[in-house]
Amino acid sequence: MRNDRLSLEEVARQVDAKALDYWALSDRIWAMPELAFEEHRSVAEQCAVLEREGFRITKNVAGIPTAFVAEYGQGGPVIGILGEYDALPELSQVSGLLQHEVVTQGAAGHGCGHNLLGAGSALAAAALKEALASEGIAGTVRYYGCPAEENGGGKSYMARAGLFDDLDVAFCWHPHVLNEVHATSSLAEIQVYFRFHGRATHAAHSPHMGRSALDAVELMNVGVNYMREHMPTDARVHYAITNTGGDAPNTVQAYAESLYSIRSPLLPDAQRLFARVKKIAEGAALMTETSVVVQIAGGSSNIVPNRVLQEIMYENICRIGPPAFDEADYSFAEKLREAALTEESLLASIAPRDPSLSSKILHDGVLALPAREEVEMGTTDVGDVSWIVPTVQCHTACFAIGTEFHTWQMVTQGKLPAAHKGMTLAAQIMAATAADCLRNPAILARAKAELKERLGSHSYVCPIPPDVTPDHLRKKPAKVV
Amino acid sequence: MRNDRLSLEEVARQVDAKALDYWALSDRIWAMPELAFEEHRSVAEQCAVLEREGFRITKNVAGIPTAFVAEYGQGGPVIGILGEYDALPELSQVSGLLQHEVVTQGAAGHGCGHNLLGAGSALAAAALKEALASEGIAGTVRYYGCPAEENGGGKSYMARAGLFDDLDVAFCWHPHVLNEVHATSSLAEIQVYFRFHGRATHAAHSPHMGRSALDAVELMNVGVNYMREHMPTDARVHYAITNTGGDAPNTVQAYAESLYSIRSPLLPDAQRLFARVKKIAEGAALMTETSVVVQIAGGSSNIVPNRVLQEIMYENICRIGPPAFDEADYSFAEKLREAALTEESLLASIAPRDPSLSSKILHDGVLALPAREEVEMGTTDVGDVSWIVPTVQCHTACFAIGTEFHTWQMVTQGKLPAAHKGMTLAAQIMAATAADCLRNPAILARAKAELKERLGSHSYVCPIPPDVTPDHLRKKPAKVV
Amino acid sequence: MRNDRLSLEEVARQVDAKALDYWALSDRIWAMPELAFEEHRSVAEQCAVLEREGFRITKNVAGIPTAFVAEYGQGGPVIGILGEYDALPELSQVSGLLQHEVVTQGAAGHGCGHNLLGAGSALAAAALKEALASEGIAGTVRYYGCPAEENGGGKSYMARAGLFDDLDVAFCWHPHVLNEVHATSSLAEIQVYFRFHGRATHAAHSPHMGRSALDAVELMNVGVNYMREHMPTDARVHYAITNTGGDAPNTVQAYAESLYSIRSPLLPDAQRLFARVKKIAEGAALMTETSVVVQIAGGSSNIVPNRVLQEIMYENICRIGPPAFDEADYSFAEKLREAALTEESLLASIAPRDPSLSSKILHDGVLALPAREEVEMGTTDVGDVSWIVPTVQCHTACFAIGTEFHTWQMVTQGKLPAAHKGMTLAAQIMAATAADCLRNPAILARAKAELKERLGSHSYVCPIPPDVTPDHLRKKPAKVV
Amino acid sequence: MRNDRLSLEEVARQVDAKALDYWALSDRIWAMPELAFEEHRSVAEQCAVLEREGFRITKNVAGIPTAFVAEYGQGGPVIGILGEYDALPELSQVSGLLQHEVVTQGAAGHGCGHNLLGAGSALAAAALKEALASEGIAGTVRYYGCPAEENGGGKSYMARAGLFDDLDVAFCWHPHVLNEVHATSSLAEIQVYFRFHGRATHAAHSPHMGRSALDAVELMNVGVNYMREHMPTDARVHYAITNTGGDAPNTVQAYAESLYSIRSPLLPDAQRLFARVKKIAEGAALMTETSVVVQIAGGSSNIVPNRVLQEIMYENICRIGPPAFDEADYSFAEKLREAALTEESLLASIAPRDPSLSSKILHDGVLALPAREEVEMGTTDVGDVSWIVPTVQCHTACFAIGTEFHTWQMVTQGKLPAAHKGMTLAAQIMAATAADCLRNPAILARAKAELKERLGSHSYVCPIPPDVTPDHLRKKPAKVV
Repeated sequence: MRNDRLSLEEVARQVDAKALDYWALSDRIWAMPELAFEEHRSVAEQCAVLEREGFRITKNVAGIPTAFVAEYGQGGPVIGILGEYDALPELSQVSGLLQHEVVTQGAAGHGCGHNLLGAGSALAAAALKEALASEGIAGTVRYYGCPAEENGGGKSYMARAGLFDDLDVAFCWHPHVLNEVHATSSLAEIQVYFRFHGRATHAAHSPHMGRSALDAVELMNVGVNYMREHMPTDARVHYAITNTGGDAPNTVQAYAESLYSIRSPLLPDAQRLFARVKKIAEGAALMTETSVVVQIAGGSSNIVPNRVLQEIMYENICRIGPPAFDEADYSFAEKLREAALTEESLLASIAPRDPSLSSKILHDGVLALPAREEVEMGTTDVGDVSWIVPTVQCHTACFAIGTEFHTWQMVTQGKLPAAHKGMTLAAQIMAATAADCLRNPAILARAKAELKERLGSHSYVCPIPPDVTPDHLRKKPAKVV
Repeated sequence: MRNDRLSLEEVARQVDAKALDYWALSDRIWAMPELAFEEHRSVAEQCAVLEREGFRITKNVAGIPTAFVAEYGQGGPVIGILGEYDALPELSQVSGLLQHEVVTQGAAGHGCGHNLLGAGSALAAAALKEALASEGIAGTVRYYGCPAEENGGGKSYMARAGLFDDLDVAFCWHPHVLNEVHATSSLAEIQVYFRFHGRATHAAHSPHMGRSALDAVELMNVGVNYMREHMPTDARVHYAITNTGGDAPNTVQAYAESLYSIRSPLLPDAQRLFARVKKIAEGAALMTETSVVVQIAGGSSNIVPNRVLQEIMYENICRIGPPAFDEADYSFAEKLREAALTEESLLASIAPRDPSLSSKILHDGVLALPAREEVEMGTTDVGDVSWIVPTVQCHTACFAIGTEFHTWQMVTQGKLPAAHKGMTLAAQIMAATAADCLRNPAILARAKAELKERLGSHSYVCPIPPDVTPDHLRKKPAKVV
Repeated sequence: MRNDRLSLEEVARQVDAKALDYWALSDRIWAMPELAFEEHRSVAEQCAVLEREGFRITKNVAGIPTAFVAEYGQGGPVIGILGEYDALPELSQVSGLLQHEVVTQGAAGHGCGHNLLGAGSALAAAALKEALASEGIAGTVRYYGCPAEENGGGKSYMARAGLFDDLDVAFCWHPHVLNEVHATSSLAEIQVYFRFHGRATHAAHSPHMGRSALDAVELMNVGVNYMREHMPTDARVHYAITNTGGDAPNTVQAYAESLYSIRSPLLPDAQRLFARVKKIAEGAALMTETSVVVQIAGGSSNIVPNRVLQEIMYENICRIGPPAFDEADYSFAEKLREAALTEESLLASIAPRDPSLSSKILHDGVLALPAREEVEMGTTDVGDVSWIVPTVQCHTACFAIGTEFHTWQMVTQGKLPAAHKGMTLAAQIMAATAADCLRNPAILARAKAELKERLGSHSYVCPIPPDVTPDHLRKKPAKVV
Repeated sequence: MRNDRLSLEEVARQVDAKALDYWALSDRIWAMPELAFEEHRSVAEQCAVLEREGFRITKNVAGIPTAFVAEYGQGGPVIGILGEYDALPELSQVSGLLQHEVVTQGAAGHGCGHNLLGAGSALAAAALKEALASEGIAGTVRYYGCPAEENGGGKSYMARAGLFDDLDVAFCWHPHVLNEVHATSSLAEIQVYFRFHGRATHAAHSPHMGRSALDAVELMNVGVNYMREHMPTDARVHYAITNTGGDAPNTVQAYAESLYSIRSPLLPDAQRLFARVKKIAEGAALMTETSVVVQIAGGSSNIVPNRVLQEIMYENICRIGPPAFDEADYSFAEKLREAALTEESLLASIAPRDPSLSSKILHDGVLALPAREEVEMGTTDVGDVSWIVPTVQCHTACFAIGTEFHTWQMVTQGKLPAAHKGMTLAAQIMAATAADCLRNPAILARAKAELKERLGSHSYVCPIPPDVTPDHLRKKPAKVV
């Protein structure tokens, strides 16, 4: 049906030609782990490489200093490739060790492989523009530098700012222990602070004069726990108490607050649930004669899967095949497995897929597209992009099976050869699928039709209200208590 | 200072002269125990006797079939004497036995001595009008037939109807194990139903479609228990769940209700607390997406003590002295003590007074007026009368020390000679104090001034709203569940 | 592959030949609706008919007066066919009306079609024994008269008594709006009373002396609502408060109890959850200084589906086809739809199947076997049988689409011709599938192998402990409060 | 009766002679505000002065670096005088200003006047030893340097170490706005941590695998709020949540803790209540499948008042009279009142005494000994001393009426002349009363007899268990979350 064997080879060749530079980029970012919204040095590294490739850079987009867009070409279909580069707190780890050993006490670490993610996506973008040029295909390639995936949802703010509105298709990937098209949906999420204000008094002398904000926080939680029976079982509501009003029991607490995460497979359902939780907060305020201020802290939409794109990407991942791991890769993975991966983590790293996969050291195959669409009980800000433009993602094996996210075991593998190989594969898959889309406009048309049908009467409305800026960029309020 | 020894003798003589008739009245009512608002036969007995005395009877007052007023004389000061006659459920008991033995299974019984209370007050009224007549003193004597003291608060409805508005002073008493002026205040109380309406559904199949009224009842209770820390410690809030929405766990409960009792030493404080409890109910409804209907079931004001009247009454009780119990009275009381009164009940029956009183079999003295005004942690509808007109009460020893209210032990003594003697004493004390008030207008003036001062800026507003009729007279709603 | 067309015809013929008698049996039972464990007259009617057919009857089995077994034949494979006959409270309804009109106020009604269920299963048993006899096939046919499916779980007690232990296969059916093999599993359930004992006291006078059993009930519920977040989402826990300790708010409640239903797709998981709920009850008792008595009230196992039997039954239902509804059947169903079936009930009656089915008036087809095994969020005591012996059920269309269970709309159709036709079909399907099993021992072997595999290391243990008798047969305890 | 006018004059003279030195000591300590258990420089200042007086100093007593004992004389009756010197956080204030102005941002300040308290008690001790010497009276004078009254209860640890065991009588005072013998009791208190340990998990992905320690903290609080109805109304239970398990809602909290304060007018009742709260904590752990560690953080006994000593002290305070405030003292107080004291604080500073006192600028009288012994709804570690040895305290006017404790308004007045005068008065009252005790052994005998009678069957057991060291001296545990 299609005669694009050559093109695939061309794309793969371009990726291979540039790989060394991007491995180095990934390794540099691994070594300067920066937290959400503070990825200034990582962004500088990325921009420098992409500028050298000839991309036009727009920095500080969506009002976020560490968000940027790099563009190449013009007109025609516009291809978006999404990159990330934020690290996680308290995950500092020496590279390539089989045991936990920090570089810098208390420092961050790339426990989710976003050094690879960003560099791999940039590599895909760079290779794609070469391939298009060499084949004379029109169009624009745009790389999105997306901050704060871990905590804050950079893409949601970028989506709110309209940065994805003129895209025709979007690609992303995530470093993983398996090779597969990412075919699951995710949970939409709203994060929201409930801030209660009461009246302080001495708790032994005149408790009847006080109105406890901490009581309100607790009663709200009781109310939410009662609501659980009467909400859909695929939704999630959980909370942290982020301010208890102080450590002194002898004062009735005049201020207290909680941070809620409200999730559902569909954003409108999450919003309906949020409305109920808000009523519970108001009920708790009524009960305690306190007042409550509700402040959205962030939010992400669920992923709208795109079967049309998944199938094209699946063809490509099958044709390219798994990374070519060598003896050394296997040897390290096996030693790590013995030293630091538990039976539990072996199963957890591949769940909910076939448990027999856990017998493998490194994934040497490609998983089939699942017959049935499942919801993964987690959230990503890629969801917001997928409401605006047909979006598809893949996973490639960068780590030993048994490596769980957000662990030092993942950090220690983040710049080893196996990780580089997985990243190269991901760039090839994304670039090849993008090339298919550009060469065959019918794919884009079908993908857009699917998105339209899936959304039905809904259209994208950012779950973060217009006046909310990223929590981490905001000046912290003066301590109230 | 006063030269009324003779009058006291005259009053006492009049009481003695009529006592036999009223003992018989008391005994007849003992034998026909009727529950709150259903005291039709007891009222007929009372009215028959008072009509024979020449009182003008007005029946069915305040819209209550078993409330009546009996009046004698005209103009001048108007003296009110309050009577009661309602019994208690499940207290049927053979008279004069030393062990529990019912007359009729499941029937009511006079476990609070209201047979004596009503007959004793009527005796006081009848004796007073004779004494006044014989001394040529002008004035009106009015006996109030008050239903439903135990459960419903007949006097509160009568007060709401304005029946006590033209009184100059009011008297009441209660059969007891001790002789004393009743000098404590009581708690104002509001009884109120919180009726929650939700949405039923199958609790296993589609719990997310249901909105549980039972959840709302429970969350309201949680809210109230949190409020306890922040309300005055002399207030009381307690509740029963009067409808749980059914016995089937597999249905989300569409209806549920609770009955709250909210009490405080001062009625305005009880009302303030009620407003807070109402907010908690509304909060619980908000939390559960149910609706709540708040319906006052009844209410009584706190007693406003009147020291002026207490002191006059105290003089009279001292001059008349305790009942003249004889050998037989002591013998029965002693046997009952051995057979059926526990150490605990001996102390409870006299608490919180001097525990050494528990060594006595029958009270052969008179307790001193307490130096400090205390609040008794209970409620009576005499409270409403005391907000409108200076009111005073006494206790007289009708029962063996150790007899607790609302027990068969009280019922069994309800028509024995000792009870008759205590009742006669009460009639003498009330009539003598009333006579003092009539002969000495300065007393009434001082008593009224004291009431005015105690109320300050407050004036009587019935705790039961105008549109609420007694719960027990209302047609029961069709069962909702 | 199989040459049993003739046999199917023979079975169908036998069913048709006897149908009139069993329609009459069903109609008589419809007209004498009896509640769970009180089905004495219904049992007498059933036994009379089966005795006339030559079945040997054993009454009063498993210690339950309305449970019986009717047996025919001997040796060889033993076929069990399960029947029910209990009605539901408050569902009295005139037959064949288009609007709600009760026969007897407050009376029961066959709102779940168990009049048809029992008669249809008896018809299958009777037809089967004739067919076997005419074909000379050895074996035993056993009809189980099972009481109290709606409330009490008669079959669970019968299973505990070992009555199904020697069966080779069991069949059941349920009257429905659709024709299909019943291929879903159900929830295992444990019903359990938590009875709390505290200490009464006057709630205004001395609340600190009381220990509230009602507090304990409420705190247990709070605890369970907190547990919801941390239990599997496919489990269910719900409750009713069955004794609140009285309607008087002025007494601290000395006794209170709740009835919990704890369900899970697998019985062992339900039992694990029960253990957690029990800890919560103990925690609530600790918190309130009360004591708790835990008493199992009943329980049912989940259904273990049997794919082998489902496929055989599916072949038969396809070959026999849907009931032959005529003009009059359609006409009544259409009028009922207009008069008394809402859009909501149209969808609910067929959920979670394809919503487009709701456009039909009566089901004129047969639904395909679902590809994926689902759990129905409800419970039936057929589950217990299915743990002991391979069990299969079907649904046949007896009622208009849009008719929901436990409604007068179902009662009104319970003896109309359409219901009779659906019942006849069910008897044919069960008898034909049973005949297949008898003729082809390999089916039974495969079915048993499947059951064994599905149970794995588990074996049947009745969820109702040995010392628990049916709640409804027990003498009610004297009222505690 | 007594001939000690001269002695009083002698004592007063000795105090006056030394006053300047101790005012300077007080002022130095005011200027180096140190928090609980960190009062190293303040202790050094105190010791230096007392050493110069000839006292023998023992430092680092009871295992606390800032606790010390200074002793003079030997044998005979042993007189204890208690001093304090700890400051409060965040109360830095420039001296003598009429508005709030900090010296050092975030620094501590003497918001409770302990600079005066310590210096005044030391002055009393120094003057007493001179007076005794000049009169040739035998005995020992001992000054106790007591740290951490505000937060930690230094005296309770010192009492536990037996440091007060050989005392015959103890004196203390507190700077105040009024002149009076301190005749109220206080609440005994137990402070205790409840530390819950659960199991973390991802709150969206696998909440059923987690066991929430935060749930346990919340459920414990719910349980305690339910207990409130059933505990004595004069007890107090209040709490702070001191660790919520982290700010991330997406993790089920594996650790959480609360700090409870449990108080009652009598220590044994506080301990009984503590036992109930502990059961509630265990109940919450049971409910959530978490575990709980209960750790006492501190505790103080209630004050056992001593009427014998109060009456002697009252005689002395009457004879000496109020401080001799001059025009300048009044002028400053009046300006402060206008600038910075609200109507509310005027009333609060003298509550619950006669509100008409609020019309005064500085207290120019002496309050009468109250007729009835009241409980002040607060806690002090003087309570522990009062269980061991007859103890008495006074208040003297050091501050303008309307000055509340723990405010900058108190700090600003802490080294003004009025404060010095009040401190001098307190030293005279304590020294004079101590002298009376020494001269008249019968007083000590009667005071001891009263203590014995009040304790009845109880004897002092420190509310802090033997193995608990002061919270503030302990090495903080590594952060668990």
